[in-house]
Amino acid sequence: MVGPPMDGETETEDINMVSMSVSLEQRQHNQNPTLDVHQHKVGVPSKQNLFKEFTSVLKETFFADDPLRHFKDQSSTTKLKLSIQAVFPILDWGRGYNLEKFRGDLIAGITIASLCIPQDIGYSNLANLAPQYGLYSSFVPPLIYACMGSSRDIAIGPVAVVSLLLGTLIQNEIDPTTNPVEYTRLAFTATFFAGITQMTLGFFRLGFLIDFLSHAAIVGFMGGAAITIALQQLKGFLGIKHFTKKSDIVSVLHSVFDSAHHGWNWQTILIGAVFLAFLLFAKFIGKRKKGLFWVPAIAPLISVILSTLFVFLTHAEKKGVAIVNHIEKGLNPSSAHLLYLSGENLLRGIKIGAVAGMIALTEASAIGRTFAALKDYQLDGNKEMVALGAMNVVGSMTSCYVATGSFSRSAVNYMAGCQTAVSNIVMSFIVFLTLLFITPLFKYTPNAILASIIISAVLNLIDYEAAILIWKIDKFDFIACMGAFFGVIFASVEIGLLIAVVISFAKILLQVTRPRTALLGNLPGSTIYRNVQQYPEANKVPGILIVRVDSAIYFSNSNYVKERILRWLVDEEEKRKEYSPRIQFVIVEMSPVTDIDTSGIHALEELYKSLQKRNVQLALANPGPVLIEKLQASEFTILIGEDNIYLTVAQAVHACSPKVAEVP
Amino acid sequence: MVGPPMDGETETEDINMVSMSVSLEQRQHNQNPTLDVHQHKVGVPSKQNLFKEFTSVLKETFFADDPLRHFKDQSSTTKLKLSIQAVFPILDWGRGYNLEKFRGDLIAGITIASLCIPQDIGYSNLANLAPQYGLYSSFVPPLIYACMGSSRDIAIGPVAVVSLLLGTLIQNEIDPTTNPVEYTRLAFTATFFAGITQMTLGFFRLGFLIDFLSHAAIVGFMGGAAITIALQQLKGFLGIKHFTKKSDIVSVLHSVFDSAHHGWNWQTILIGAVFLAFLLFAKFIGKRKKGLFWVPAIAPLISVILSTLFVFLTHAEKKGVAIVNHIEKGLNPSSAHLLYLSGENLLRGIKIGAVAGMIALTEASAIGRTFAALKDYQLDGNKEMVALGAMNVVGSMTSCYVATGSFSRSAVNYMAGCQTAVSNIVMSFIVFLTLLFITPLFKYTPNAILASIIISAVLNLIDYEAAILIWKIDKFDFIACMGAFFGVIFASVEIGLLIAVVISFAKILLQVTRPRTALLGNLPGSTIYRNVQQYPEANKVPGILIVRVDSAIYFSNSNYVKERILRWLVDEEEKRKEYSPRIQFVIVEMSPVTDIDTSGIHALEELYKSLQKRNVQLALANPGPVLIEKLQASEFTILIGEDNIYLTVAQAVHACSPKVAEVP
Repeated sequence: MVGPPMDGETETEDINMVSMSVSLEQRQHNQNPTLDVHQHKVGVPSKQNLFKEFTSVLKETFFADDPLRHFKDQSSTTKLKLSIQAVFPILDWGRGYNLEKFRGDLIAGITIASLCIPQDIGYSNLANLAPQYGLYSSFVPPLIYACMGSSRDIAIGPVAVVSLLLGTLIQNEIDPTTNPVEYTRLAFTATFFAGITQMTLGFFRLGFLIDFLSHAAIVGFMGGAAITIALQQLKGFLGIKHFTKKSDIVSVLHSVFDSAHHGWNWQTILIGAVFLAFLLFAKFIGKRKKGLFWVPAIAPLISVILSTLFVFLTHAEKKGVAIVNHIEKGLNPSSAHLLYLSGENLLRGIKIGAVAGMIALTEASAIGRTFAALKDYQLDGNKEMVALGAMNVVGSMTSCYVATGSFSRSAVNYMAGCQTAVSNIVMSFIVFLTLLFITPLFKYTPNAILASIIISAVLNLIDYEAAILIWKIDKFDFIACMGAFFGVIFASVEIGLLIAVVISFAKILLQVTRPRTALLGNLPGSTIYRNVQQYPEANKVPGILIVRVDSAIYFSNSNYVKERILRWLVDEEEKRKEYSPRIQFVIVEMSPVTDIDTSGIHALEELYKSLQKRNVQLALANPGPVLIEKLQASEFTILIGEDNIYLTVAQAVHACSPKVAEVP
Repeated sequence: MVGPPMDGETETEDINMVSMSVSLEQRQHNQNPTLDVHQHKVGVPSKQNLFKEFTSVLKETFFADDPLRHFKDQSSTTKLKLSIQAVFPILDWGRGYNLEKFRGDLIAGITIASLCIPQDIGYSNLANLAPQYGLYSSFVPPLIYACMGSSRDIAIGPVAVVSLLLGTLIQNEIDPTTNPVEYTRLAFTATFFAGITQMTLGFFRLGFLIDFLSHAAIVGFMGGAAITIALQQLKGFLGIKHFTKKSDIVSVLHSVFDSAHHGWNWQTILIGAVFLAFLLFAKFIGKRKKGLFWVPAIAPLISVILSTLFVFLTHAEKKGVAIVNHIEKGLNPSSAHLLYLSGENLLRGIKIGAVAGMIALTEASAIGRTFAALKDYQLDGNKEMVALGAMNVVGSMTSCYVATGSFSRSAVNYMAGCQTAVSNIVMSFIVFLTLLFITPLFKYTPNAILASIIISAVLNLIDYEAAILIWKIDKFDFIACMGAFFGVIFASVEIGLLIAVVISFAKILLQVTRPRTALLGNLPGSTIYRNVQQYPEANKVPGILIVRVDSAIYFSNSNYVKERILRWLVDEEEKRKEYSPRIQFVIVEMSPVTDIDTSGIHALEELYKSLQKRNVQLALANPGPVLIEKLQASEFTILIGEDNIYLTVAQAVHACSPKVAEVP
């Protein structure tokens, strides 16, 4: 409990402050080092011009990544060239493109195309759309992205979660079985506004808004969506004809077991199970040996070909095995005239589009960042959003629904050795050929195969390892994760998403209302003051209470901070009761307090007054540049006395310690 | 640019670390102080039990003020007694009550009663209610509060801003002139739910939610409301008969000047102006000399008496001077059967009640805190909310509308020397007598006087000094303040309130997305590292970049933090281009980083990988207890190497400096 500085040892304290430029020998002759203690005063930065201050805040908020760095000191023609390149990065990297890079892109493109074609057909089914729309969405959007995007590894196209989300949200408004045309029109409208949302966020540099969905919430949401999607596939997998429209696990399982006696089709189950086993085995091989990554990548296409051939030869469709039956042949028709641009459906489209657009962005930006970090290149998140938005806007006019970056295909793309976005162009070209020539061949593809492919694909989205890590690291995050997970499974995608957003925000608010505070003690034999909870060896200083406030003091926490410091005082007074002297100084370590507002200053004033009433002196240590400026502007420095503001805790303790009266 | 530690001076550095228990003399013989440098390791707190961790978080969030402190170690009968006392503090302080205290309370009670009676009549008009409802609301709620509340200085009753808010919100739903009965019923319903809202917030200890409305926003909102209210009074003050129902300044001034030629009544204006001058003069006197505080306090009642007498004698009401005409005589009738408990009006009542209840709470809690700090007693904000809520629930059943603490009357109460809540009982008793015997005498009171009284009262709410201080201290806060102010004046009370809430939240979100970072340098002659912007004399260390992150690293800012540190690196590399050596170490000072989540750890991992790619080593200094635990759980400590985590920046610099290669 008794720590330095004590009588006869105060000099030891001083030594730690003396000038380092004085060599050791010199210092041994320095008889009065105390003179040097206050050589450094708390610095007050020179007052900034208001305009400058404003622009610097603006820059940190919206242009934190300094996107105009390259434009500095350039002629205006260069600037124009750079601007065009900024919008179409293909003009930049395209010039350095060569045959060797193309070899990588070609192989990667073929691989992801073989993976995407069966997935597209299945995903469009998730979105309650005809199968060709999934293929359309793998043709136009990747081309646009290749011109405007800057990620080299992302694979563009429809993805499972967004398809499910879109399907659920639109189905709430329009029934896809009775009004298929209106349903499709609303899907295009939602896609259009998803693109507009993405472009707007990117253009106004509001990309950081998607960071408000926490990683933990996304892990939970994705896992829940994966299970929901897999459950939905039971329809195709078991060959059930009458299936619930709800997506929660209770309704789905009810629907499945209700039809167990009459609705299951054993031929379907057999085909599905065999190929699911094949797909999972291929996946297992791919995981075991990195070099065989292409095995799981082409397995789906092989399954489709084999099963289609099988059904064609055995005519299993006559035994009740459901087949795809018909995919429209030909390229994307124009759909610009189909968009709802007025009326109630416009509002619905905006609402659904905004939600789907944000989720699509979250997925794409996570993929973009991951691979950019792996290959160490810079991605401008906001520019990416503009690219993704533009591609969806164009997509909505060419019969595509919301496309984004796919986790599984991007990983395959990366492993297949893609070099640039050209792999997306290659994929797009293969889809183009498919649309022109091959679609009729899908007629006999059994739905059970598509279900198996989707089940095996979405299993990747269940990231239980991440969930375990989240549990280990942050229990509150785990609640967010599980909340989103069970929300999706037991209620619906929207509810799960809502839970994820609400818990994420609750965490932010909790963080700012209840900042941490810590009691500091002196590490024996040093001038270092540290949290006594973390360093049990740290000694509290007699007669002095040292508290560190670990956050900016704003209106949302100013009262809490004031009351928490007073509570520390009361608690410590109780603990130290037997020891004299009583606490006569409260030193508040302000290093982590980066900012303060008027409420915060009021709270400090109230703290000062409360302490004065108890005959305790307040002292501050190491206020930062913003803080000291505001404390001066509000004349708080005059109120507590400039002498009571110190550069370090050690200095404050050094100054206060001798004044502690031994008798309470 | 060149700072310590340099060759030959490293020993100086070490000295600062050596044990302080070694006396100065001893140390002079210590030839190898380097041995002591690492005597303190970064502390890892012992793992807490999950349940303990959870309860401690729960306690900090909801029971930060430790309300059960007194219950510790007590017998169960004492606990019961304390619980009853906690709900009815009057049982506690009532026992120590004596005649001397009563003298103070009696004088204060009479003073605030004389102030509240004319104000009540005017404020009920603001709420579009008959005048007696204002008086009712000054009779029952103060009695309930006196039993349950713990503030000694607050004066309870109707207040201007809440009356205006209630009037505006209910008028949007029901027209008070065509449907006065339904209007009044909805007012009671809203009052009931305002009370329920307040009790719920208090009971579930969610009182901190009202802290989310920033001080600056409240200053702006109050100022705007004051001006809106004053403008509304022009109707009574100028004797205009046809007046707009809108509250924005444009509509009101339009209405005023449209009727300038035919609608103004000079007799009304004369009476109003004379007494407004008198009231303002009384106020001026009260401000000049603190001892004469009672002059402005009784001036309104004197004005009412004199002007009523004047109208009665001259029969000015026949010249077009509008008078009160009729106030219902008698005590509050029951209104429990009038509450809407089903249908559309129930929902309206809940909505309006929740908003009005929150605003009323904001005002009451600001008053409670201010005076508690002045007299240094503790207030439990959540218990106060329960008391205020209970008083409004009872009020809604006894024909009262939302009551809360009044700024102006509480200040008068305090200055008149109130000792306890008994002053509210005295005031309530006088209102009781007024309702029983005196109301008929108000018949000839001219409306112009009420207008003058309200104008002079609400002028107090325009706190331009606070606005100037806000401008000086925080420009963003000033935007919030002005946004709320102009929102109220030019649009409506609701819009102003909405702007205030939105800007307050935007500030919180900005705070967590864009935390500050700072570049640190060494203060010459010390081991102290400080922000180079604040301390221009601080020297950057060659080959080493020292960055401090000033906030917890959460999902909302993890990407920004990572990218900002990389930007510091790029910027500094450019600046230091001419100097060798190149930057080979990045030391991140983690002291202010109180917490981290999974996204934050991902960001650190990505930062580490990016730095490795550039051949730069990452080191951390002084991670806190929570941080080090989570870094270990996620095995980040193993990734960067335990050696690269230091107790202080000085130690980190000391360890890295010798490794900086001179040739880049």
